[in-house]
Amino acid sequence: MQTFINPSEDKWPQITGRSHLDTPALNKTVSDILNDVKENGDAAVKKYNLQFDGVVSGELKVSQDEFNEALSLVNEDLKAAIQLARENIYRFHVAQKEAVIKIETTTGVTCWRESIPVEKVGLYIPGGTAPLFSTLLMLGIPALIAGCKNILVCTPRGKDGKINPVILYVAHLLGLKNIYKTGGVQAIGAMAYGTQSVDAVYKIFGPGNQYVTTAKQLVNQQGIAIDMPAGPSEVAIYADESCRPHFVASDLLSQAEHGADSQVILVASSIKIMDEIRFQMDVQAEALPRKNIIKECLGGSRMVVMENVTDAFSLLNEYAAEHLIIASDNAEALAKYVRNAGSVFLGNYSPESAGDYASGTNHTLPTNGNARAYSGVSVDSFVKKITFQKIEKEGLQKIGNAVELMAAAEGLDAHKNAITIRLKYE
Amino acid sequence: MQTFINPSEDKWPQITGRSHLDTPALNKTVSDILNDVKENGDAAVKKYNLQFDGVVSGELKVSQDEFNEALSLVNEDLKAAIQLARENIYRFHVAQKEAVIKIETTTGVTCWRESIPVEKVGLYIPGGTAPLFSTLLMLGIPALIAGCKNILVCTPRGKDGKINPVILYVAHLLGLKNIYKTGGVQAIGAMAYGTQSVDAVYKIFGPGNQYVTTAKQLVNQQGIAIDMPAGPSEVAIYADESCRPHFVASDLLSQAEHGADSQVILVASSIKIMDEIRFQMDVQAEALPRKNIIKECLGGSRMVVMENVTDAFSLLNEYAAEHLIIASDNAEALAKYVRNAGSVFLGNYSPESAGDYASGTNHTLPTNGNARAYSGVSVDSFVKKITFQKIEKEGLQKIGNAVELMAAAEGLDAHKNAITIRLKYE
Repeated sequence: MQTFINPSEDKWPQITGRSHLDTPALNKTVSDILNDVKENGDAAVKKYNLQFDGVVSGELKVSQDEFNEALSLVNEDLKAAIQLARENIYRFHVAQKEAVIKIETTTGVTCWRESIPVEKVGLYIPGGTAPLFSTLLMLGIPALIAGCKNILVCTPRGKDGKINPVILYVAHLLGLKNIYKTGGVQAIGAMAYGTQSVDAVYKIFGPGNQYVTTAKQLVNQQGIAIDMPAGPSEVAIYADESCRPHFVASDLLSQAEHGADSQVILVASSIKIMDEIRFQMDVQAEALPRKNIIKECLGGSRMVVMENVTDAFSLLNEYAAEHLIIASDNAEALAKYVRNAGSVFLGNYSPESAGDYASGTNHTLPTNGNARAYSGVSVDSFVKKITFQKIEKEGLQKIGNAVELMAAAEGLDAHKNAITIRLKYE
Repeated sequence: MQTFINPSEDKWPQITGRSHLDTPALNKTVSDILNDVKENGDAAVKKYNLQFDGVVSGELKVSQDEFNEALSLVNEDLKAAIQLARENIYRFHVAQKEAVIKIETTTGVTCWRESIPVEKVGLYIPGGTAPLFSTLLMLGIPALIAGCKNILVCTPRGKDGKINPVILYVAHLLGLKNIYKTGGVQAIGAMAYGTQSVDAVYKIFGPGNQYVTTAKQLVNQQGIAIDMPAGPSEVAIYADESCRPHFVASDLLSQAEHGADSQVILVASSIKIMDEIRFQMDVQAEALPRKNIIKECLGGSRMVVMENVTDAFSLLNEYAAEHLIIASDNAEALAKYVRNAGSVFLGNYSPESAGDYASGTNHTLPTNGNARAYSGVSVDSFVKKITFQKIEKEGLQKIGNAVELMAAAEGLDAHKNAITIRLKYE
């Protein structure tokens, strides 16, 4: 890990920078696959499933038999754990539903917003080496709370030609029936354009590798909404004298196991704390199955000592981490400094793992600095807020003249006339 | 206008289709300008200001003298109208601020969201033939309510080399000081990358022509957030027996005057109503200054008779209009059918013009069918909702085992270990 001691501000870009994706080169490859799916539908999807995942596709949609088989393979303890997670995620997200508040801005002029579900949504759930059934909880639950009518799921199969059974168990638990056995760019294309088997959707959610991410960005330019731009997962940790170094070490390592491109940043309040955490990381890493991935990731990661707490949080805000852990007994007070982050974990007993799975918050969060302007997934992500207004004749009499003057000043006389004709009418 | 009488569903795509932009061709032109601005800063911005707008640029930032001159040029009636609009827009938007609600999902596990302003935002205000000072109200007011720290505005100058004085009056009224004299792709580039004069921002807002829209989409792919994809303005009107045909005609014409590419769709409940509205349009159009633009726009527009009200709204939901007017005494009941729209105007005294300027709702709305998945601009657009969680030791004891089981099932043992190490600690 690179180390910085009280770096001056001109060094910060070096600390907060992310590795750059070669977008133009990916664009061509991804765009060719998308066009093929748009033109050739299921046939193209099946071709790429074979080419990239090595699996032969019959029906793309998961059958009842496949559901039944999967349900029998998941052990009861795991089922209970998932049900606990579902409860907490539900409780946190259902509180995000908004009541309609009618505002009378002027007597006779009433305006309000209503949250109307996005009718058709597609959820992409990565498979492969780490089949993320937890992501299906994180996307499926708010979609159901929002009231989305058509919710479909695409997920790739493993080397055995089957979808991970826990993903199918979660789908079953949530009552989601439209599950399609395809991943990668071809899955994004299928959801964006529709094929013989897969209905086109209005918005696509879910994480993926750089091909999937590029595909989402390209279909976004073509008018399909997406949850957010996504990049490799990240954690930043602020640790002061009151942290438990071995806890902090375990959190840094848990982020690092996601992959060699994961980002891990520690900002410690002293050299002593940093050294203690580093020692604990070395000890713990040896015992972890993914220690090779972890070591590769840590090579690109950074440890910073910032003795001044204001500077520490300025740097962390500049970085805008997906996950920010404040490992301090004073975490709630320090939270006031946070301006940019996806999700913040306060105190020594709030590890990122808890939020990844079961505390209730969403784990689909902005990466790559996007937390400066983007929120994580919530019920908001599955609705549009449509504004309504009801103006009485009396209300139009009160605001009509202002509208006429402003429209005329913008040179829009027909806009003015729409008011004039009403005000003149008896 | 093309006319359809009770069209069957296979005809709907023809009715709801939008004209297609040639994105790849635009991409190259726009991307070259963006790269030039990225590399050469102010010099490139000034070069394109001369090339496209025919204006020589000295300082890009508006000076106090320029403000003073502009304020003296705006008449008092218009100032009062703008102040009335500001009041209503403020009242509607300030109610969108969200209180923090802490949810204890499990005893000892507390989760909440906080709305934190996007620190740096850029507002693009079109100038040229129709300088939209109203758009500055619509973007500036929610940005101020959200608490954005740096709010900057770019707007092009007219042929006289000056910014429209009403735009500067609105900026002054709102207390916005960082106004830059540049429009077009170069303005988007300046806000995205920063130049010697213009600070880089995290999110760019505002409407523009197809070059500006393409520029926003390209910088969005590079990590700068944008309000929404934008296209030509649109209105759809549902009119039944209780409408006032001359009111409806005035609303259709007010949309049509925006430009030849504006979209206007009428869905009437009977041929009689449609014919009455068409007659009124012909009469009114003759008296309007922009009648040539209007006629060109109406050439591409559509009139549909839908005798079945459910079908009528299915078609309108398929279209997903930016503005939807329900011209009926029964509008509030009919509003229940609306699933996709940007902003909805209920009843015979709720013209789109009112919402464009002064009723209080925002006029920056999703076009081009994007209302299926996007909301219009609101205070939400200027904040991120960051999730926080505080877990007590007792809370971690309750959910820890579930997290361990789920993490292990996803093959993420370091995630599991971050829990185990805490649960074991006395």
